[in-house]
Amino acid sequence: MTAKTAAIFYHAGCPVCVEAERQIADALDTTRYDVELVHLGEQKDRIAAAESAGVKSVPALVINGAPFHINFGAPISALKS
Amino acid sequence: MTAKTAAIFYHAGCPVCVEAERQIADALDTTRYDVELVHLGEQKDRIAAAESAGVKSVPALVINGAPFHINFGAPISALKS
Repeated sequence: MTAKTAAIFYHAGCPVCVEAERQIADALDTTRYDVELVHLGEQKDRIAAAESAGVKSVPALVINGAPFHINFGAPISALKS
Repeated sequence: MTAKTAAIFYHAGCPVCVEAERQIADALDTTRYDVELVHLGEQKDRIAAAESAGVKSVPALVINGAPFHINFGAPISALKS
């Protein structure tokens, strides 16, 4: 076994986020990827790392450190208050 | 074995598309999903079906008939000429 690739799915519990989680995050191959789900509205201490990875809005998936925005639920700025 | 779920990745060969294909489409669990890659610039006869599924830009992934736009490479209108 080689090490799995990190895949972090950032969301905020919004309807667009839930749908993306159900259809995309759940479709990843967990034999090759360590999938972590992070709710940025509840885990505000994770916002800085998400922004550093290039995340501008949720839902977003960061794989191998690269950000992929999936549709559009909310800007990350709206999760900071 | 139950039937696999259809997952169609629409792209146009653009850099944003290639990156999304390499990181997202290739990460899907192929034991559960039948992943098809469609280059809409070369397969213009597939554009109508993509639009019917709600695809507005590429790269996009249609899973279970629902469209997920991944970042932004090109609008689908640019692929029709």
